[in-house]
Amino acid sequence: MSVPAAELRAMLRARELGASVLGTTSPNPAVGAVVLAADGTPVGEGATAPPGGPHAEVAALARAGERARGGTAVVTLEPCAHTGRTGPCADALIAAGVARVVVAVPEPTELAGGGADRLRAAGIDVELGVDRDAAEEGALAAWLTGVREQRPFVVWKVAATLDGRVAAADGTSRWITGERARAAVHRLRATCDAVVVGSGTALADDPQLTVRDAAGAATGRQPLRVVVDRRGRVPAAARVRDDAAPTLVSRAGTPAELLAELYARDVRRVLLEGGPTLAAEFLRAELVDEVLVHLAPVVLGAGPSLVGDLGIPTMADALSLRIVDSIPLDGDLQIRLRPTRHTGGDQHAGGGS
Amino acid sequence: MSVPAAELRAMLRARELGASVLGTTSPNPAVGAVVLAADGTPVGEGATAPPGGPHAEVAALARAGERARGGTAVVTLEPCAHTGRTGPCADALIAAGVARVVVAVPEPTELAGGGADRLRAAGIDVELGVDRDAAEEGALAAWLTGVREQRPFVVWKVAATLDGRVAAADGTSRWITGERARAAVHRLRATCDAVVVGSGTALADDPQLTVRDAAGAATGRQPLRVVVDRRGRVPAAARVRDDAAPTLVSRAGTPAELLAELYARDVRRVLLEGGPTLAAEFLRAELVDEVLVHLAPVVLGAGPSLVGDLGIPTMADALSLRIVDSIPLDGDLQIRLRPTRHTGGDQHAGGGS
Ligand SMILES: NC(=O)c1ccc[n+]([C@@H]2O[C@H](COP(=O)([O-])OP(=O)(O)OC[C@H]3O[C@@H](n4cnc5c(N)ncnc54)[C@H](OP(=O)(O)O)[C@@H]3O)[C@@H](O)[C@H]2O)c1
Ligand SMILES: NC(=O)c1ccc[n+]([C@@H]2O[C@H](COP(=O)([O-])OP(=O)(O)OC[C@H]3O[C@@H](n4cnc5c(N)ncnc54)[C@H](OP(=O)(O)O)[C@@H]3O)[C@@H](O)[C@H]2O)c1
Repeated sequence: MSVPAAELRAMLRARELGASVLGTTSPNPAVGAVVLAADGTPVGEGATAPPGGPHAEVAALARAGERARGGTAVVTLEPCAHTGRTGPCADALIAAGVARVVVAVPEPTELAGGGADRLRAAGIDVELGVDRDAAEEGALAAWLTGVREQRPFVVWKVAATLDGRVAAADGTSRWITGERARAAVHRLRATCDAVVVGSGTALADDPQLTVRDAAGAATGRQPLRVVVDRRGRVPAAARVRDDAAPTLVSRAGTPAELLAELYARDVRRVLLEGGPTLAAEFLRAELVDEVLVHLAPVVLGAGPSLVGDLGIPTMADALSLRIVDSIPLDGDLQIRLRPTRHTGGDQHAGGGS
Repeated sequence: MSVPAAELRAMLRARELGASVLGTTSPNPAVGAVVLAADGTPVGEGATAPPGGPHAEVAALARAGERARGGTAVVTLEPCAHTGRTGPCADALIAAGVARVVVAVPEPTELAGGGADRLRAAGIDVELGVDRDAAEEGALAAWLTGVREQRPFVVWKVAATLDGRVAAADGTSRWITGERARAAVHRLRATCDAVVVGSGTALADDPQLTVRDAAGAATGRQPLRVVVDRRGRVPAAARVRDDAAPTLVSRAGTPAELLAELYARDVRRVLLEGGPTLAAEFLRAELVDEVLVHLAPVVLGAGPSLVGDLGIPTMADALSLRIVDSIPLDGDLQIRLRPTRHTGGDQHAGGGS
């Protein structure tokens, strides 16, 4: 498969467009699309609107208008062939007269599948699987986990000292990291459908768990705040229960139960924000898909560790991850990791590339 | 001060040359020098030889020969004006007929000082302080700490898991990091005059603490191995006491006492390799100049932490450092930090730039 550079550039842009709406589309996938005119010029961009709104391809076609005719649609997920709350995207592409459709990830569900076939039947050239891994690991990862495992994708974020402490001996934890890392957490929350803490964190830190800007004002759509509080210890006056955002106080007994509860509420991407006890349970259950450590260059020498006991006695049994990337956030370091077992199951099962 | 690009390039190279002999020159500084011909072409390179051998400028001049005449000598430390085990470098530069001498760091000792004055008196153009900070933080840092504080420079190196553990609950610690990080430790040892552990590490891990190559064979000069063992617990059969390298079993009561003992033995750069108890004492005493964390992407959930108790009760009192750089070593991450207090005292005191 040799794909023209203009299409690869458009695919990169489509991934960015998808990522830009992460956290606003669930239970639908965060898809991005770019329409190129017949001469290869980008003439329209789109990303999935919130549920009920237009899909990415339809938005991109609307912007391209007549310039789409004879052109190419570049899209991160195979256009659907079914009528849901919106009409089939395949039909919209046929109607717009595009000559070619370039797709990263084949549609994995039976329900929405068949788009490529329908396009081909209409004489359109369809290329599937272009830069597929990048799209699967990007904005589509959460939705794909939902399709494959019927549970939300879990990002565990933790701020820690160099010696792996998440709080000092006296329980203080403000602030381990600097402003830039904290601002990154607010942006991260905005990409998630729910933010989860255990009752221990709610009681110790009384966090509000909203998405706020630098001035501290709540901004835009707020993810569902979730406190797992099996013994009902978190008081009604806790800030996480204020009216700044919706809140779920859950009595789910295990991480799997909690994720099932959240999945049923259309949550597809969860930010687990602590603390060590709950994080340990998620890790034990192999229900963490991505880890974001905000590592601060400070040393405490005492205080609770990043993660509670995992029942691991010896080095050979250590839970292993791989570092995806690490970037400085002012004086701190953000390290992104994924477990080495792949949580998404066989990535390419059912694919048609 | 505006310095020609060719001289700046030569200074960068001179720093590299100095770094290449780190660990072989103590108690002398690891200096690098490059001689440029009159037309700016590099015609000779040199670095400090082991004690008794030629200084960097003299080695570089020897390689340049007649091409040095009318040229420029670029050197990381001001050429000495005194006769020690070798003759004054200033005189060698005058004899070689160089027209200009470019220096990063002015000589901080009375004894060896006066080189620039002697060169100027001979009609040579002298530029001091070129890229000074880079040279001071590079290969000269250890020697400068010795001059300023009459103690060796201390690099604390530790291999830790993401959750800040240096061993598992059962005491196993092999291997936290991968091969590439471990090979980097051997190269690091080779840049130091001594490698220090506490009796706890000697007893738990029985390390050999030699510089070895990938095949496990001891290579070249070996740093002094030091075990701080105040109660004489480390047996004669311990590997650190084998005959692969010299060993000092010290009964020094405090890190400061130990460093004084090592300084008296001409040690200028110490690699502190653990464990958490001894590292904590060095940190408390503010006797760590650089920290190298080899962070492995694994999680244990239990086991001894990176550093023992520091008596820090609350977040606001955390010991703070700054990240100098971080680089991947295969799957691991090497994070280099320095304490935010500057251990070298007023860096530019007595400088003449
Ligand atoms: N630096 C950071 O990024 C960060 C983030 C968060 C917290 N922290 C710090 O962590 C400390 C709190 O630690 P923590 O471990 O107590 O907090 P936590 O993990 O948030 O809460 C623990 C509690 O969660 C409840 N829970 C609900 N479902 C559970 C399950 N499936 N398994 C286990 N527990 C479950 C348990 O109480 P019930 O049995 O009553 O339900 C448990 O006691 C505070 O000092 C806080 O500052 C730091
Ligand atoms: N991952 C890594 O990079 C790494 C590196 C090293 C060690 N480790 C692990 O660390 C563990 C050993 O920990 P550790 O803390 O016992 O090792 P340690 O710090 O090497 O040794 C501690 C001992 O050092 C002696 N010591 C000498 N001078 C001291 C001073 N000024 N202050 C305090 N103690 C002094 C003390 O015994 P005396 O009073 O008898 O002198 C003390 O018990 C092992 O599990 C080992 O695997 C890991």
